[in-house]
Amino acid sequence: MNTKMIRYILAKMLGVEAVLLLLPALVSFIYREFSGVFFLIPAGILGVVYLLLGMKKPENRTIYGKEGMIVVSSAWILWSLFGALPFSLSGSIPNYLDAFFETVSGFTTTGSSVLQDVEALPQGMLFWRSFTHWVGGMGVLVFVMVLTTLDKKNSMYLMRAEVPGPEKDKLVPKTMSTARILYGIYFGMTAVEVVLLLLGGMNLFDSLIFSFGTAGTGGFANYAASVGYFDSVYIDAVITVFMILFGVNFNLYFFLLMREFKPVWKNEELKAYIGIILTSALMITINISHLYTGPLKAFRYAVFQVASVITTTGYATADFVEWPMFSQNILLFLMMVGACASSTGGGMKVARFLMMLKCIKREIVQMVHPKAVRIIRMNGKKMDQDVLRVLNIYLMAYVLTLVGSVILVSIDNMDFGTTFSSVMATLNNIGPGIGMVGPNGNFADFSALSKLVFCCDMLAGRLEIFPFLMLFTASAWNRKF
Amino acid sequence: MNTKMIRYILAKMLGVEAVLLLLPALVSFIYREFSGVFFLIPAGILGVVYLLLGMKKPENRTIYGKEGMIVVSSAWILWSLFGALPFSLSGSIPNYLDAFFETVSGFTTTGSSVLQDVEALPQGMLFWRSFTHWVGGMGVLVFVMVLTTLDKKNSMYLMRAEVPGPEKDKLVPKTMSTARILYGIYFGMTAVEVVLLLLGGMNLFDSLIFSFGTAGTGGFANYAASVGYFDSVYIDAVITVFMILFGVNFNLYFFLLMREFKPVWKNEELKAYIGIILTSALMITINISHLYTGPLKAFRYAVFQVASVITTTGYATADFVEWPMFSQNILLFLMMVGACASSTGGGMKVARFLMMLKCIKREIVQMVHPKAVRIIRMNGKKMDQDVLRVLNIYLMAYVLTLVGSVILVSIDNMDFGTTFSSVMATLNNIGPGIGMVGPNGNFADFSALSKLVFCCDMLAGRLEIFPFLMLFTASAWNRKF
Repeated sequence: MNTKMIRYILAKMLGVEAVLLLLPALVSFIYREFSGVFFLIPAGILGVVYLLLGMKKPENRTIYGKEGMIVVSSAWILWSLFGALPFSLSGSIPNYLDAFFETVSGFTTTGSSVLQDVEALPQGMLFWRSFTHWVGGMGVLVFVMVLTTLDKKNSMYLMRAEVPGPEKDKLVPKTMSTARILYGIYFGMTAVEVVLLLLGGMNLFDSLIFSFGTAGTGGFANYAASVGYFDSVYIDAVITVFMILFGVNFNLYFFLLMREFKPVWKNEELKAYIGIILTSALMITINISHLYTGPLKAFRYAVFQVASVITTTGYATADFVEWPMFSQNILLFLMMVGACASSTGGGMKVARFLMMLKCIKREIVQMVHPKAVRIIRMNGKKMDQDVLRVLNIYLMAYVLTLVGSVILVSIDNMDFGTTFSSVMATLNNIGPGIGMVGPNGNFADFSALSKLVFCCDMLAGRLEIFPFLMLFTASAWNRKF
Repeated sequence: MNTKMIRYILAKMLGVEAVLLLLPALVSFIYREFSGVFFLIPAGILGVVYLLLGMKKPENRTIYGKEGMIVVSSAWILWSLFGALPFSLSGSIPNYLDAFFETVSGFTTTGSSVLQDVEALPQGMLFWRSFTHWVGGMGVLVFVMVLTTLDKKNSMYLMRAEVPGPEKDKLVPKTMSTARILYGIYFGMTAVEVVLLLLGGMNLFDSLIFSFGTAGTGGFANYAASVGYFDSVYIDAVITVFMILFGVNFNLYFFLLMREFKPVWKNEELKAYIGIILTSALMITINISHLYTGPLKAFRYAVFQVASVITTTGYATADFVEWPMFSQNILLFLMMVGACASSTGGGMKVARFLMMLKCIKREIVQMVHPKAVRIIRMNGKKMDQDVLRVLNIYLMAYVLTLVGSVILVSIDNMDFGTTFSSVMATLNNIGPGIGMVGPNGNFADFSALSKLVFCCDMLAGRLEIFPFLMLFTASAWNRKF
């Protein structure tokens, strides 16, 4: 365990957060808000930490996957701990635990909120809140890797813990270049969305806020009514399309850049993802059409909500808590499914679901024809046994985390829909759930214990459970290994 | 595919049902109920089926696991289809689908009911309803094996699909003897419970009804208030203890009979099972003590309900829907866990949960010490890779069945707690859930589609999903294989 190297990387990353905090300070300055100084205080502290611990490179720079996972998990927690300071210091979110919840929710791109009146926040605070989504979206680490000068060899291990989903295809031999390209795509797509929203009549501030939320598949809005505030078919359409785009495996964009269309066209996960979205949107449209004037309007709200939930963004144009239970349960299922692997979305990922179905199919075939040896293929390639093992273990850990969290949160004695969906919404990094935590509700009324459980769920969900569990494994911290 | 042999075995089994139907007819006769004739009609039909198809042994008697699973699945469905006739013919449950639901619920030892007023049923019908639990409990097949003269070699394959849970330890080389011994233990324990209940002041009819329900871990009662009707500490205690006993792996009783105490003492599943019961009962006691006069009374209701739910019996002494959400969610979790493998209980089984936890632990250890090769042991023995694979696949199929069923049932637009727990209660063969399907509620108000889904869930749960899925696999019916 190379603790010196871990300390060094973390200090570097905190230095990056110091720089990031200057951006909302600038926004506050533009809007002439005094609360801007509360960004400068943590920025100063983080700057000092960086200067003390992040300047001198340790001699032994060898780190392994274990250290990588600990770095990633710790980074997310530390960023949230410091990132919460502006909210609580300024009094925008007086209670520090609430501020921490909101920041974890931001960096993990969850979008669950404890704010009862979001519109009362100063512009600088709203900007920082949504900016955390954008930063968290592509992963603190890929982001940091591009900016810092970490050894190229070792950053590989960090990438492994970072890239979401079961696919680990290396598109470019050097992790650093991959990171830079992915980051470029992310930046470019965000910029296009900002422009399209501006064309729809949104002001610059709002289009930044909503682009950050879409790109990170986060879902924080600066209006209580979320995207519903604009009540514009054009804006709904733009955000729907971009939510879906940000839920696609970014490697596919890379292939498009290389003008290689075959891997995109043949990608099984992408087909399933589009298929699930269309099927769900259609079923919900039929189920809710009596609530709206005409099926077209119903489809508009249905497809938006489906895209919002499957990509784990969490924006709303309608209060889906008012929808029939059938539609609500499809949305709950989509929460579990989540977006594609290697996207900014959360959840279990479509690829995992596909693999599960393939495993079940293989088992049935083997029961019927005991001598048949069936290999599981994904996109034409044979699935590695290790990948399948990790998939299984992930599912177990996921179910147990879900069940354990539901039991802990139920101490608060909310109704079952609220309890269950609040855990689903945080563990899958969605944002809103059903019941009390629906699009018009918030997480304010939960106890401190539940809020801590939610914070853990958001972090566990974002880090795909195991890197987060590592933090709590005593022997992981053993210096000997 | 040896269809002749399948037809032969099924006909034999239907013959057995014909004989079983004479017992409730006798009860009706004793109580001078005219409705007794409605047992004789299906008994006659089944007798004819047996005479036509079940007398002549086919020449080729070779059957494999695949045939075994198809026989078991078909047997359960056929028994339910015919077993439902007395209810619908007599008008006790006029709608045939409802009668089928009730009978599936009986044979699968689920205990979910569509009856709005159970006490209005004639004694003969009540007896048949509870008797299906007892018959289903130890498994239609073990039961039939003892009575029929199936080839000893081939009955092995049937056993494999029949014995619930992941453990397949052969205690005695010959399956037939094992079946006879297990059946003897089952019969003996039921008899002891009947006597103990009689000593508690119950009449013979009631003690049979409640012993059938306990032994099969079913849960049908002949009073609306379930076990709560008696309001007796002694009866609560007897039933609590016997529910727990019937949830234990029956192989352990076999060891006790052989005076081998070490395998019992060292059985990890048993320890976990007892541990979970005590911990859950204690937590619920604390959580509900303010609702009752003193913690002792709270403990009495808590431990009864915990035993009732983890063993998937489903009896009630209190309306736990009135309990705080924390207690309700612990019960929902216990529904999933289920009883021990090779018991009469349903659910996922404690052994599966233990294995899951061990898999997760191994994975974390491997993440921390990549070179460590860790073997998963259960009761000191190395777990076979195939067993682990099937465990994983089972979990996937379980989660997908759960999710799919919830979505289908939610078309009925009940509240989320009702929707979710009704699927949990049927898929895990419990009986009552929370919300509308709580101990004081029933399944009458669901649509026909939902009732069909519940029937499938009860059968899938009882048959541990895969043998049931086999039925719907086209290629399984291919004669070529």
